[in-house]
Amino acid sequence: MTSVDYKLLNTDGTARRGQLQFARGTVETPAFMPVGTAGTVKSVTPEEVRASGAEILLGNTFHLLLKPGMEVIAAHGGLHKFMNWSGPILTDSGGFQVFSLAKLRKITEQGVTFRSPIDGSKIFLGPEEALDVQHTLGSDVVMVLDECTGYPATFEHAQQSMQRSMRWAERCKRAHKGKHGALFGIVQGGMHLQLREQSLQDLINIGFDGYAMGGLSVGEPKDEMLKVLSYMGPKLPANAPHYLMGVGLPQDLVEGSRFGIDMFDCVLPTRNARNGWLYTPNGIVKIRNATHRTDTDPVDKSCECYTCKNYSRGYLCHLYRSHEMLGARLCTIHNLHYFQKLMQQIRQSIEDCRFMTFRKEFYDGIGVEPPDVA
Amino acid sequence: MTSVDYKLLNTDGTARRGQLQFARGTVETPAFMPVGTAGTVKSVTPEEVRASGAEILLGNTFHLLLKPGMEVIAAHGGLHKFMNWSGPILTDSGGFQVFSLAKLRKITEQGVTFRSPIDGSKIFLGPEEALDVQHTLGSDVVMVLDECTGYPATFEHAQQSMQRSMRWAERCKRAHKGKHGALFGIVQGGMHLQLREQSLQDLINIGFDGYAMGGLSVGEPKDEMLKVLSYMGPKLPANAPHYLMGVGLPQDLVEGSRFGIDMFDCVLPTRNARNGWLYTPNGIVKIRNATHRTDTDPVDKSCECYTCKNYSRGYLCHLYRSHEMLGARLCTIHNLHYFQKLMQQIRQSIEDCRFMTFRKEFYDGIGVEPPDVA
Repeated sequence: MTSVDYKLLNTDGTARRGQLQFARGTVETPAFMPVGTAGTVKSVTPEEVRASGAEILLGNTFHLLLKPGMEVIAAHGGLHKFMNWSGPILTDSGGFQVFSLAKLRKITEQGVTFRSPIDGSKIFLGPEEALDVQHTLGSDVVMVLDECTGYPATFEHAQQSMQRSMRWAERCKRAHKGKHGALFGIVQGGMHLQLREQSLQDLINIGFDGYAMGGLSVGEPKDEMLKVLSYMGPKLPANAPHYLMGVGLPQDLVEGSRFGIDMFDCVLPTRNARNGWLYTPNGIVKIRNATHRTDTDPVDKSCECYTCKNYSRGYLCHLYRSHEMLGARLCTIHNLHYFQKLMQQIRQSIEDCRFMTFRKEFYDGIGVEPPDVA
Repeated sequence: MTSVDYKLLNTDGTARRGQLQFARGTVETPAFMPVGTAGTVKSVTPEEVRASGAEILLGNTFHLLLKPGMEVIAAHGGLHKFMNWSGPILTDSGGFQVFSLAKLRKITEQGVTFRSPIDGSKIFLGPEEALDVQHTLGSDVVMVLDECTGYPATFEHAQQSMQRSMRWAERCKRAHKGKHGALFGIVQGGMHLQLREQSLQDLINIGFDGYAMGGLSVGEPKDEMLKVLSYMGPKLPANAPHYLMGVGLPQDLVEGSRFGIDMFDCVLPTRNARNGWLYTPNGIVKIRNATHRTDTDPVDKSCECYTCKNYSRGYLCHLYRSHEMLGARLCTIHNLHYFQKLMQQIRQSIEDCRFMTFRKEFYDGIGVEPPDVA
């Protein structure tokens, strides 16, 4: 067994039901990974994350590198002990944030130099540095450093960007030798299917423990994303896990699963919770609305989360309007539970070979027309 | 049994070890009541409050009257169901906040008129209205509306203010007839012992289920407070509970217990937690300090709270510096636990008739000279 073992249980069309087996525990797939940006899934404890059904977390290399810094993480013996999460952790490479958040960044073949948004200090992040940080974090799934091609991108630009990402991927593979954790490659190439295929072939030639789709959900129209996803998803190596990075909405999780994606991550459930947007099988509840003030019903009567079992819409509305921290927390608990429940339903429907039926029920519930994929 | 039954278990000097028996549960005394200002002990759930050892909460009439408003609380069938706390709740009358927070207040014999800080609307709060709100909240301990005499106050001013409070107390007694909950009177009189004695006698003549000391910890020097406390504490009726309002520091809880106080409340443990001040038997730990960054020890190795059992000073320091909500929450859990543990130690030391020995150990631990009481 490598540092992660992917076990395919069954398929339904191109959808896959499987398991990721880590030394730190088994993850049922398709799986959604809550995001613990700065060493915490915002507002909730690891026990609450676990109670939602989550089996693996995502940690952000960029944020943790800046704050608290690697000497703090190293003193604690890694991210797991630091944040008190004993299950597997996937870490990104930091590249996405460097490109989108950092100021004054300069990209060369060697890597990226940028100014810390915290103290203005100059930091260099190349493939080897990105891996080194993830090794210090003690990540169970290490991501290669790549350049996330923006949208829109011309063929030529997307090609050059993708090719550099592939050269970096190769350096990452070398830098990871003998280290803890699975190493995942990232398919780039913008919306150009030919480049995407080339990127995947390059990664397969290098050889990775898993394959991620990067550069999606970066502002492109939904049908562009679905075009790439439906074309590439089924081409990803069958014996390795498939990860769709930074995605997404509940409907994106359904569509991703449809095309063979095994892993997702997104800040949506936690960020929207803090903004008072609550997910339910019948669509979104905006808890700040006056209509909820005296409502003694829970957010979702069918929901089994701690929040719905114990608190009313009226109470959550009050907490939100009073800027009480407990409100953000109770909403986060609910949304995390909703996302995990959705994944559980997706998994069950694949097992039962009724995924497309479930998909129809899901869209009927939220009152949205299912997307058409050519 | 009245709506609360006070059972004296034993005494040690003027310190009292007892129990408050409510329909909603028994409270071991001396007891500390965490403050749930706006229908939540900030950042924590009722289960976490309960796990700290707390058996009774304080709710703020003023805040709840303004937000979410009584129609919301009434729709939920009272504060207990609204906030999901099944134990007893004591509510203040709102008077203290009206006098200290509200703008444009006007006091007459009838009551207080003030402008809502939320929407500027004009609100009238008299003794009958203050009781009515507390009845809607479903409070287990209802406090009379009083005027909290500020510091300093001349004899004449303190006397007039106290006498009006006594007239209001009488109206409260009438307004409470046949209603749920114990009704507590509040001793006023500023720092003038003669007025304090008169106030207590007036309240005893009216007859209450419990007696509170108000108008302390309002900016007076510590020795003034102790003078009033040491003089009045032992004079409070032996067969009823004694409540020191809005107090205080750990050392105040020790001194209050010494002079026969049974109940305390204060925002200190929760507010200071959010500011990163953590209480320990050896004094305060300021968690933001750089010295804690790489410290893998808990806040207090001897502490049994969830925070100390699972997280390092380094992690808490990181959460504080990153403005993560989980930091405020973990610190609140610790401070609530510290305050309850202190009360538990006070109770045990009274049971063992070694209160003054415990008192010395307590001051030795925090490195503070015990106050001298004449």
